[in-house]
Amino acid sequence: VEMQSTQIAGPFLLFLGDSQDSRLTKTAAGVHHWCPEMCKGQLRLDGETVDLGLADITPKKFQERYGSGTLIIGVANVGGIFPNSWIKTLVSALEHGLDIASGMHSRLADISPVSEAAHKYGRQLFDVRFPSGPLVVGTGKKRSGKRLLTVGTDCVVGKMYTALEITREMQARGAKVDFRATGQTGILIAGSGICVDAVVADFISGAAEMISPNNENDHWDIIEGQGSLSHPGYAGVSLGLLHGSQPDALVLCHEPDRKLIAFSESYPVPDIQTTIDKNSLAAKLTNPAAEVVGISLNSKSMERSQANDYIRSLQQLTGLPVVDPVRTGVGAIVDRLLQ
Amino acid sequence: VEMQSTQIAGPFLLFLGDSQDSRLTKTAAGVHHWCPEMCKGQLRLDGETVDLGLADITPKKFQERYGSGTLIIGVANVGGIFPNSWIKTLVSALEHGLDIASGMHSRLADISPVSEAAHKYGRQLFDVRFPSGPLVVGTGKKRSGKRLLTVGTDCVVGKMYTALEITREMQARGAKVDFRATGQTGILIAGSGICVDAVVADFISGAAEMISPNNENDHWDIIEGQGSLSHPGYAGVSLGLLHGSQPDALVLCHEPDRKLIAFSESYPVPDIQTTIDKNSLAAKLTNPAAEVVGISLNSKSMERSQANDYIRSLQQLTGLPVVDPVRTGVGAIVDRLLQ
Repeated sequence: VEMQSTQIAGPFLLFLGDSQDSRLTKTAAGVHHWCPEMCKGQLRLDGETVDLGLADITPKKFQERYGSGTLIIGVANVGGIFPNSWIKTLVSALEHGLDIASGMHSRLADISPVSEAAHKYGRQLFDVRFPSGPLVVGTGKKRSGKRLLTVGTDCVVGKMYTALEITREMQARGAKVDFRATGQTGILIAGSGICVDAVVADFISGAAEMISPNNENDHWDIIEGQGSLSHPGYAGVSLGLLHGSQPDALVLCHEPDRKLIAFSESYPVPDIQTTIDKNSLAAKLTNPAAEVVGISLNSKSMERSQANDYIRSLQQLTGLPVVDPVRTGVGAIVDRLLQ
Repeated sequence: VEMQSTQIAGPFLLFLGDSQDSRLTKTAAGVHHWCPEMCKGQLRLDGETVDLGLADITPKKFQERYGSGTLIIGVANVGGIFPNSWIKTLVSALEHGLDIASGMHSRLADISPVSEAAHKYGRQLFDVRFPSGPLVVGTGKKRSGKRLLTVGTDCVVGKMYTALEITREMQARGAKVDFRATGQTGILIAGSGICVDAVVADFISGAAEMISPNNENDHWDIIEGQGSLSHPGYAGVSLGLLHGSQPDALVLCHEPDRKLIAFSESYPVPDIQTTIDKNSLAAKLTNPAAEVVGISLNSKSMERSQANDYIRSLQQLTGLPVVDPVRTGVGAIVDRLLQ
């Protein structure tokens, strides 16, 4: 099954709107971090806007230098809708030969001037939160090739970051590997994928099956996890993704200082062993060989020595390789995968 | 939060199309079984069509006798789309003062002649598979009142039937109780509800929270379950529904002779104790007091004596009340609920 067959084409111009809050420009920062060679410039609506340190380029200049490419909407807006103040700039990008890609909750295609300009100038609009083709119910049929899924004790604990680091490390070692994106930033980075939290509920595991199809026996799909089995709002998405991914290997992501589940007022973050057991058990439904092969921490709130102690004690407790992708890299986990 | 605030209004005329296959007219049969006093007639396109034993009435006659009401699309069509041969009849129903309610995968509102006629005659179209209002992500906040959810070892094992029987039995005993529908046939029977498998994946548990809001402390919501935690395609829906429902009580539905999970080629039906453990454990995330309070069987494939032996042995094994709603009624489970 072919999905999202049209890849989002580089080079990229990163649109930052007029956001002065770097928490809202994380998508742009993520694309810049993971695809630095693709990002040729930033487009900011005024001088107070967050600065990623890229050249400020207008769509006209971008066209003169690079011919074509894609304007990436790299800024989230509270409420997820496009402000009117952006429209002129978006239309100008289309006029100057750029496609536009967005991970917002509302659609570029629903903004009449933008949709008309795309048609007029023959450009493409990528609303990556919305699946572009027909989906199916998951079948649970065994697929060839190997798969790794990142899971978490919570949302926003580094599941995308860890998956991308593992992919990069495996590529560096010459392994056959693909990153498989399941969220909007991941899709913008990978150029394809399906937002599994945006599909109709019946199709969660079917979408996961679709993004990681049959492959060579020694090929690894590194699948971006979503949510957490212990999140009162998102666990359904996490379970469907887990079943559809049929992972051979799970990597558990965790933020040591987090006390409460994200976006909840009273749910404690579950402990690591409970999370390992819960995910392993659920994963065995569609892949009896599934096992947790490592733990990936976001320990930025800790001093280095404190983080090292924590990593060592967690290794002893679980018998698993424990890493912080930023501090230690993910080599210890990849060692185990490629054994 | 108010959803689907406009109730589907009786009396009902059950539309059976030209189906000669009673497996395809189960929705009509279900509405007839559970709402006999509401169903005043059937509308069949020819003499070979399945006969529910109701009076054959034209929309014109229906209007003369009852003034207004709703035409229920009681027949499923392979592929879930409306054949052209139905359209004239649907338009005639609207012309004669009937609303139309459908649980099909495609929308009444998307058929131009039907949508235009509804507008012209001021009638309503209920596409019950599609949520009618905005949805939210589940919060996991504790709600007042009591809740029961039916869960299953598989799909299509009697979760709706059991929930409706428990509701009816509790009503008969004067308890405060409401059936909460989560699938299309249930919604047509109840007149409101949300198809949880048709919502965007992010909102599964939020939808379950919405259909069973805060209530009096001694009020029971009896929530229709969907899918199974052991189904490779649908477990995400089941887990989101379980978390959002915050059930105090779970009733496990099971078909003793089923060997393989529905719509799968190789997944075995899990055993009862495993299913009890899996559902109880998952339910405790949002309601630590959750417990399985009974087992409901569909034992129609067994001889009566064989079924009785099976029920007795399962009672001994689990220590729970075990019923077959058709053969024994659900009294034993309701006894335990109202203790």
